[in-house]
Amino acid sequence: MTTKSKALEPSELAYVPFVSVDNMMKNVHSYGVEPFMTGIAEYIEEDFLRWESFDKKPRIPAHAPQGVIELMPTSDGETFGFKYVNGHPDNTKDGRQTVTGFGVLSELSTGYPVLFTEMTILTALRTAANSALAAKYLAPKGSKTMAIIGNGAQSDFQCLAFKSMLGITDIRAYDIDPDASVRLARNLANTGLDVTICKTPEDAIEGAQIVTTVTADKKYATILTDNMVGSGIHINAVGGDCPGKTELHKDILLRSDIFVEFLEQTFIEGEVQQLDRDHPVTELWEVYAGKAAGRTSDDQITLFDSVGFAIEDFSALRFVRDLLPKTGHFEKLDMLADPDDPRDLFGMVLRSKNDGTGAAA
Amino acid sequence: MTTKSKALEPSELAYVPFVSVDNMMKNVHSYGVEPFMTGIAEYIEEDFLRWESFDKKPRIPAHAPQGVIELMPTSDGETFGFKYVNGHPDNTKDGRQTVTGFGVLSELSTGYPVLFTEMTILTALRTAANSALAAKYLAPKGSKTMAIIGNGAQSDFQCLAFKSMLGITDIRAYDIDPDASVRLARNLANTGLDVTICKTPEDAIEGAQIVTTVTADKKYATILTDNMVGSGIHINAVGGDCPGKTELHKDILLRSDIFVEFLEQTFIEGEVQQLDRDHPVTELWEVYAGKAAGRTSDDQITLFDSVGFAIEDFSALRFVRDLLPKTGHFEKLDMLADPDDPRDLFGMVLRSKNDGTGAAA
Repeated sequence: MTTKSKALEPSELAYVPFVSVDNMMKNVHSYGVEPFMTGIAEYIEEDFLRWESFDKKPRIPAHAPQGVIELMPTSDGETFGFKYVNGHPDNTKDGRQTVTGFGVLSELSTGYPVLFTEMTILTALRTAANSALAAKYLAPKGSKTMAIIGNGAQSDFQCLAFKSMLGITDIRAYDIDPDASVRLARNLANTGLDVTICKTPEDAIEGAQIVTTVTADKKYATILTDNMVGSGIHINAVGGDCPGKTELHKDILLRSDIFVEFLEQTFIEGEVQQLDRDHPVTELWEVYAGKAAGRTSDDQITLFDSVGFAIEDFSALRFVRDLLPKTGHFEKLDMLADPDDPRDLFGMVLRSKNDGTGAAA
Repeated sequence: MTTKSKALEPSELAYVPFVSVDNMMKNVHSYGVEPFMTGIAEYIEEDFLRWESFDKKPRIPAHAPQGVIELMPTSDGETFGFKYVNGHPDNTKDGRQTVTGFGVLSELSTGYPVLFTEMTILTALRTAANSALAAKYLAPKGSKTMAIIGNGAQSDFQCLAFKSMLGITDIRAYDIDPDASVRLARNLANTGLDVTICKTPEDAIEGAQIVTTVTADKKYATILTDNMVGSGIHINAVGGDCPGKTELHKDILLRSDIFVEFLEQTFIEGEVQQLDRDHPVTELWEVYAGKAAGRTSDDQITLFDSVGFAIEDFSALRFVRDLLPKTGHFEKLDMLADPDDPRDLFGMVLRSKNDGTGAAA
């Protein structure tokens, strides 16, 4: 009775591997937080090196007064991936996350999903991995000290990625809310990083070769002003990613060599919103591929105007898909209808009732 | 020890109601297939009547030689919804579905998903509900006989929706594969519909007031030619929805009054691909709202050039969301990270390790 057994128990085709929040944490712990981010960075670099094989488009937003929901699809011609992500700065007031997300990876030849996963934690990991990857090409050689301005949910991940991938040893932390800095210092207590809590942004920047800004105000802000920024540093501007939201004074941009992920996206959302559309900026994939220069002198201010791009999520999804067989930390989700006869969808519904797997009516 | 208990057991904010394929079948059975489709049709009509409040865009496709994956987002300013759907005509060769899908409904004010559901079965139900809704406005009054050309996965749902919502009693079925018609007749055996299996499309159309075409070839085909179509009928053209795929001869289109869901989408994918962009067509919402005429005479040929539109999925998702509290047929999915302190995502990951909910290494 093949029909009955299949109706009672969907075949393998019906199941999609699902990584819950709990399983994502298990995957992170079993692989290690730092190796996990280094691994994602390797996948991102690999994908950026085949930049031209990707279908690229700016994310698709749905705006509300409180925030935005975005779909970020991309494809390399074989695999399709997308992330759903929201950004709602006031969410924390009622205990919700500012940014949450989930994502899917699919086989383009069949259209069938091969991975469905939480992406709140995964986005935090990939964002930090992506920042550190860019800094490997742009930051002064031998950087040891990083200022981190904005000590919210993304800041811990940034510090650890820069420790792991660049050898940063000292963190100088500033937040308008001192409790946020205390929280950050506590979480980094046993990681080998020295954390100094600073009273002003100026204080935080003192002696830093790398300045990471990761604040979340939904408006034009100037976290850094021009006179604060000395020559030779690398600025990793992670906050932002909304039209109308920036962190840096325009004069800093004019003194910097600016690097972006995807020009078309960054001019909508990044710090470069403040500049003319024809202002020279370099896409990072060109630097990774040796087609454009990264850092060329000790005096140069380099700026990574990070807004996040679909290919980075695609890389993170690929990394997780490849990791799951090793860790086993996933569930199987009954997401896809799988009738015996693919043309007999209604028959499957009908038989599920008769077999009692459907409700008794 | 709030921290520990929350780390061990995510709060309600972390969970998203999930309707698996099995639970979708349970929901369908407990509510009844026909009432389920009638219910969706009511929600679609309600949403089409507030057409102007929706954010409308053509779906976002990723093409492969074998088929297409599409994201279909929309929003009414309060709620955001999207469907992931694929179309791969050759999938049935290795036991997969031609069309599968899943969808999400979210609160736009927080960005948090409120429903995640399979949409392979739900799409079949909403497509049939949508066809019958259009036919209520366009088909000849008192229609009793429907020809159905193409007897695949969607055909059963179409027949039942037309029985339930229009009072169709007789089905004349034709498929190039006679086994498909036998399958359809078997599934409809105890539904109160009389099914006649026909040897040719001409035979099937004989005496029918409504002709439904629902074939799946990915090319320009002419399932119906001009001389087959008499005056006064309603054509429900469901197949298609690919650029380069049509079912009807152009001359039929020229003799018909054509109704579409969303002009911009239908000219990309529908039968009207064969016509000039300025050929007069009517959007259905205008008919439902009394702003445009539907059927105006007994001789008129009306044609619904159906391609499927995001708002119909939005309506179907709303219907399921409202149904779930009554049936209880859903699971809770641990999809959203929910730290005690929303700014302390890393702390949640850290504590999950210490608490042993994360893996031991």
